[in-house]
Amino acid sequence: MGFAVKRVKSLSAAALLAAALCVMIGSSAARAAFLPDVATFTLGNGMQVVVIPDRRQPVVTHMLWYKVGSADETPGKSGLAHFLEHLLFKGTQKNPAGRFSQVVSTIGGQENAFTSNDYTGYYQRVLRENLRQMMEFEADRMTGLVLTDDIVKPELNVVLEEQNQRIANNPGAKLSEQVQAALFLNHPYGRPVIGWRHEIEGLTRDDALAFYRRFYTPNNAVLIVAGDVTVDEVRTLAEETYGKVPRIAEPPARKRPQEPPPIAARTVTFADPRVAQPSLQRDYLVPSNATARKGEAAALDILAHILGSGSNSRLYRSLVIDKGLAVSAGAWYQGSALDDTRFGIYGTPRPNVTLQQVEEGIDAVIAELIEKGITADELDRARTKLIADTVFAQDNQATLARWFGVALMTGSTVDDIRAWPDRVRAVTTDDVQNAARTWLDKRRSVTGYLVRDNGRAEEKRS
Amino acid sequence: MGFAVKRVKSLSAAALLAAALCVMIGSSAARAAFLPDVATFTLGNGMQVVVIPDRRQPVVTHMLWYKVGSADETPGKSGLAHFLEHLLFKGTQKNPAGRFSQVVSTIGGQENAFTSNDYTGYYQRVLRENLRQMMEFEADRMTGLVLTDDIVKPELNVVLEEQNQRIANNPGAKLSEQVQAALFLNHPYGRPVIGWRHEIEGLTRDDALAFYRRFYTPNNAVLIVAGDVTVDEVRTLAEETYGKVPRIAEPPARKRPQEPPPIAARTVTFADPRVAQPSLQRDYLVPSNATARKGEAAALDILAHILGSGSNSRLYRSLVIDKGLAVSAGAWYQGSALDDTRFGIYGTPRPNVTLQQVEEGIDAVIAELIEKGITADELDRARTKLIADTVFAQDNQATLARWFGVALMTGSTVDDIRAWPDRVRAVTTDDVQNAARTWLDKRRSVTGYLVRDNGRAEEKRS
Repeated sequence: MGFAVKRVKSLSAAALLAAALCVMIGSSAARAAFLPDVATFTLGNGMQVVVIPDRRQPVVTHMLWYKVGSADETPGKSGLAHFLEHLLFKGTQKNPAGRFSQVVSTIGGQENAFTSNDYTGYYQRVLRENLRQMMEFEADRMTGLVLTDDIVKPELNVVLEEQNQRIANNPGAKLSEQVQAALFLNHPYGRPVIGWRHEIEGLTRDDALAFYRRFYTPNNAVLIVAGDVTVDEVRTLAEETYGKVPRIAEPPARKRPQEPPPIAARTVTFADPRVAQPSLQRDYLVPSNATARKGEAAALDILAHILGSGSNSRLYRSLVIDKGLAVSAGAWYQGSALDDTRFGIYGTPRPNVTLQQVEEGIDAVIAELIEKGITADELDRARTKLIADTVFAQDNQATLARWFGVALMTGSTVDDIRAWPDRVRAVTTDDVQNAARTWLDKRRSVTGYLVRDNGRAEEKRS
Repeated sequence: MGFAVKRVKSLSAAALLAAALCVMIGSSAARAAFLPDVATFTLGNGMQVVVIPDRRQPVVTHMLWYKVGSADETPGKSGLAHFLEHLLFKGTQKNPAGRFSQVVSTIGGQENAFTSNDYTGYYQRVLRENLRQMMEFEADRMTGLVLTDDIVKPELNVVLEEQNQRIANNPGAKLSEQVQAALFLNHPYGRPVIGWRHEIEGLTRDDALAFYRRFYTPNNAVLIVAGDVTVDEVRTLAEETYGKVPRIAEPPARKRPQEPPPIAARTVTFADPRVAQPSLQRDYLVPSNATARKGEAAALDILAHILGSGSNSRLYRSLVIDKGLAVSAGAWYQGSALDDTRFGIYGTPRPNVTLQQVEEGIDAVIAELIEKGITADELDRARTKLIADTVFAQDNQATLARWFGVALMTGSTVDDIRAWPDRVRAVTTDDVQNAARTWLDKRRSVTGYLVRDNGRAEEKRS
């Protein structure tokens, strides 16, 4: 079905989004002219609503977010949050399967859905006169989903095929899955959002319905409407649609098992005959926006930028330009997470350069930053760039809506988003050096090596 | 308190026991003169009873086993099974704290308790005339436990101190904990039996009581009495004591999240200033008695024996004697487990030999065994030795009781135990070679390195 194809990229898109959005959150709040227009209120049934007026075009982005993701699944049922996202397109008594998507398509709209560790979201981008209809559809499927085995079983095959395409047939994705599992020794972030294949295979209609009834309730949802609307219009429409959905469950507190203090550096080596180009990736366990001490997440954002964002970053300049060891190298920080999260580094050697040489080059860059810190000039450029990025990002209504959604799903408030640029401005060169010293400690990390499997058993095992 | 001190070694003893017992189970059943006397029956409330007559001395070993261990805990509550084991000594309304232990001591008996991944057990060794009293005490605390915060909180400190002694102050144990966590990416065997310290700290009286009420019920227990008793005597006593305990819960099926197929070799490096002697250990994910195809667990037992049991094993001969690389080297297999389990290899280099040299030596021994297999003579000697070991083991009543307990807790039946020697006898040299080829694949493994931390930051991070 159409939406299934459209959703094929949703998982990886969500991951990229999450990585990108912490940057956007960081600085677009700097535009004082924009944020004062954002309003938030709560309906009687506990559903939060956020309105982001943007009246340049007669369109709206309508996003409904649920505070449930793969980290909220019961152990042994991995993939259930994502599977349910698929099943939400299977129709209700009022609106049979396909009708919602068909209407979106007929009125020239776009739709998508995505699942992450911490959230599940659904959105449509339509003309402003269609907003009420989107709300009616979305409110209807919040509690009215009809599932039979005839529906559930074929969709399970769709999800398994998605797992094939994204993970099983993608050596890099398989390595990432293994690295993440070896990084999180206790926390459910260690399991893949799409699920472990052997567990996906066992998911049932009953599993999906139990999960749906536990987590899909207005008091566990946040509606975000960005576009050509006023706050009063959205309030009236929301009350008349979502406001009629009863509070049907009290979802459990999102308290996941936390990691023990990381004390041992780990490696993971994945060999596959399809690997054309070896590469390495290292993930460090670090605090998120939600778990960091004040200012520390902003420092990690700036650290990721200086270390590994773009061709002017330290890693790129050292490994790609100066030493000629790598064809790519960089770093990222996934600040948007309810619990401790990942700071990532990666590098791909040039032909005839070993992974070990690239790793030594990366270690040297990190060691130098820890020892000597960053310059005031680097800090200024990073801050300027982060803010400039978000000025551009604000030009996209859907991006705005997503950025608020991700932040609100991962422990931030609208006020936190407003305060973010001040936190970025407050970061000092010492803060960045301290963040590097504290968090880029190999004992907190897993280094993954993607290597070519040449079929010789000896090497396969080493 | 006395029993707390006595129980200090219970966890590690249980682990050693489990490793050792699979061997014992393997062959003591060969003594046809012994096993026909073993009887098993079930009480009306669902409690299984096993009687192992042994009339050489007027003593009995009384063991009560519960089918609950750390792998049955709720994520985030690690350590709860073991903590509850401690709390079971805190008294009931009928028998206040300390009374049970005091009586055991007064009558000259011994007692102990232990917790493992898959089971929790309590035992006393007393004169035969005291058996009824032991049963009365043990039946009383199956459902009558009284816990107040005054009792629970100090005991939590006892457990935390135990964690300090066994794990936190023991670099080798810390490494083992990390290796196990990196081996099991999804299955709860990845968490320590004693619990992650940060989770132990959060355990409460309510947690303990909920766990107790869920799992401590006669239909989840197995009574094993070995010693100077007849089956009829035990039946009468058991009916008059345990038989009166109502079935108070229906414990959930022991279906734990299973591992995804292991595809990537992992390493874990733990550096600590207290390390006097570096060492390495490697754990492979392999089938257990319960999950293996027929005959495969017996082949793994023989493989572990030939590869690494004692000074005549391949690893010892190659690394310690022939090459002079190591001061110790060996292998073991923990067959007794409900789910896929571990096959371990270890080595400790001589001074001035690197871990890498020892690892290469180990890899060479494994590669040779995979390539060339074992000799008929090696197989014969291994079988003879396994059987001889268990003949000696049968001389100890408590060992007999434990071996039945471990087997029954991990998916075996009394008939399985009886059939074991035949399965050992059926193993061929090809079976052992195939087991090595299939299961000693580095992609299924985590190799742990214990190294000295010399305090230099550069090395600490590498």
